[in-house]
Amino acid sequence: MAEKSIRFGILGCAEIARKVSRAIILSPNSTLYAVGSRSIDKASRFASANGFPPSAKIYGSYEAVLDDPDVDAVYVPLPTSLHVRWAILAAEKKKHVLLEKPVALNVAQFDLIVEACESNGVQFMDGTMWMHHPRTAKMREFLSDKQRFGQLKSMHTCFTFSADPDFLKNDIRVKPDLDALGALGDAGWYCVRSILWAADYELPKTVTALREPVLNEVGVILSCGSSLHWEDGKVATFQCSFLSNLTMDITAIGTKGALHLHDFVIPFQEKEASFSAASESWFKELLTGWVPIPSEHTVMTDLPQEALMVREFASLVRSIKENGSKPEKKWPTLSRKTQLVLDAVKASIDRGFEAVEVQY
Amino acid sequence: MAEKSIRFGILGCAEIARKVSRAIILSPNSTLYAVGSRSIDKASRFASANGFPPSAKIYGSYEAVLDDPDVDAVYVPLPTSLHVRWAILAAEKKKHVLLEKPVALNVAQFDLIVEACESNGVQFMDGTMWMHHPRTAKMREFLSDKQRFGQLKSMHTCFTFSADPDFLKNDIRVKPDLDALGALGDAGWYCVRSILWAADYELPKTVTALREPVLNEVGVILSCGSSLHWEDGKVATFQCSFLSNLTMDITAIGTKGALHLHDFVIPFQEKEASFSAASESWFKELLTGWVPIPSEHTVMTDLPQEALMVREFASLVRSIKENGSKPEKKWPTLSRKTQLVLDAVKASIDRGFEAVEVQY
Repeated sequence: MAEKSIRFGILGCAEIARKVSRAIILSPNSTLYAVGSRSIDKASRFASANGFPPSAKIYGSYEAVLDDPDVDAVYVPLPTSLHVRWAILAAEKKKHVLLEKPVALNVAQFDLIVEACESNGVQFMDGTMWMHHPRTAKMREFLSDKQRFGQLKSMHTCFTFSADPDFLKNDIRVKPDLDALGALGDAGWYCVRSILWAADYELPKTVTALREPVLNEVGVILSCGSSLHWEDGKVATFQCSFLSNLTMDITAIGTKGALHLHDFVIPFQEKEASFSAASESWFKELLTGWVPIPSEHTVMTDLPQEALMVREFASLVRSIKENGSKPEKKWPTLSRKTQLVLDAVKASIDRGFEAVEVQY
Repeated sequence: MAEKSIRFGILGCAEIARKVSRAIILSPNSTLYAVGSRSIDKASRFASANGFPPSAKIYGSYEAVLDDPDVDAVYVPLPTSLHVRWAILAAEKKKHVLLEKPVALNVAQFDLIVEACESNGVQFMDGTMWMHHPRTAKMREFLSDKQRFGQLKSMHTCFTFSADPDFLKNDIRVKPDLDALGALGDAGWYCVRSILWAADYELPKTVTALREPVLNEVGVILSCGSSLHWEDGKVATFQCSFLSNLTMDITAIGTKGALHLHDFVIPFQEKEASFSAASESWFKELLTGWVPIPSEHTVMTDLPQEALMVREFASLVRSIKENGSKPEKKWPTLSRKTQLVLDAVKASIDRGFEAVEVQY
């Protein structure tokens, strides 16, 4: 098994890298192989705290990880403003790239990353973990069912959490030089992805940001929202924020059914996750209740969604390494569409809440 | 008991009047006393189909109900465009007025109704039934709890249902001369009321309709949405529609907690209703789940919400009749605020999705 494992190097010791290190351990086709930090001590402490094997390589720079010929793939949880530099360098060193979201500060930057991955034949995937949960596939089946769900008409999603004062002062996600998109890039990313997912990745025609987003004193978004409009009349809204209690809702309403869940980004529990599906809901006689009542569906998973993500990514990497397959274009395409919509929301805010056209 | 009962007359034989007739029977302090229709045969059939006592008065006009000196109060389920005429006439005849929503085509019309009720000393209440469910009071306690919920920051509500082709062609709610506000007046009313309710009835500063509402060929709204913005940065969005599966959601997010429910207008079941409350939700170590998980709260009720509405209204009427109390101003005030926001949404649509100021 071990010889077929994809060997991961991790660039930096971000908090989220702890979760992904565990996922690499849990995933059957991957190995924690190296970690690099600007401080070798920090890298060493990170490795011992996060279950790296004794043989793991500890490096005092990101470059050293990329220069290690035995590293197959890198996980890049660096601040967004550094993505373009390190993801491109990784691709040039023929490392496959698993990149944290938001993938870039804007789609022009992201296109440079995709170009580097394509021209070097490496796989690209972003770190949107919930895409890989088996619940997501089950929900997709429901949304695609013309009898049970019909045609998507409207949608709302939110991802909010209540950041503490230290986060609001010091976290990279509130710094204009590190994660300039703030809550839009960090939390809004998931909202936009879930909307695109429900819309079968058809891009909206226009995006109009909600008025009065909350910015910090250096102009980074702490809370905002938007509406998205499609050619066929579909509409979606989302709200994302660092300033309110943790929520992560999807409401997707079709002509014949509706989907609801409240933990789409990170399920309430690791081993099982639920969603509510309603079909042809109507009123009882005299409007005294509903018939039928929406039904609850629970999906079990042996591996947490982030390990399934790693497994999927590593499996694509193996196909490339062992069979000479082409990289799977689906993943960078989804990342690009998500980034395009984020860019449009940002542009709408910057232009006084005008409707902004989205073009692929 | 019977002699203390408030005697109701019903103007017209609308479908919703069947539900309210049953509510008047179920409520312990009210009696179904009379029904009037432009067709006396229709009134007679309505009375026998809906449990009117043999002594009930059957009238061939609305005027005759208003002229009956034994009628204490009227329930008015007529098309919205007729509200101003019949609610004012009822008040002038000293009948207390329980009026279906939307209360008027616009707030100027509604002010005429309120003026007539005030100058004639009669109680006014609109037919927003869910306000009277004991679940609503329980949820209000949660929203008002600074420890469990904190300060309201953002909100989303929807009320949608899938109208059949006959409704979309013939129902009064798609006719410009009868219910000109269409889905905004019929379904959006509940969304706006729930948002105001959660905001403790503080009016938003501005309202901006979502782009691309769906109108029918004579310009009546079949589907639309809006964002609402408060001085303190609170934001709410809603979507209402005749064109998608039945949904009725409230998501209210505070600094410390969140409220969710999916059946706020009409509970799934008549005798019990639930909501989900989350407080200080956060992630488990390594973001592998939530702690605590939101909790589900169920509230039982012996009487359905519409009977509780009738009981509350009849109780206010009794206080006026028996103790010479003043009419309770809370109810017309809530109706007026709701109508004001509907008017602002309509104005924003008419003005190309401009932000429209809301002033009381």
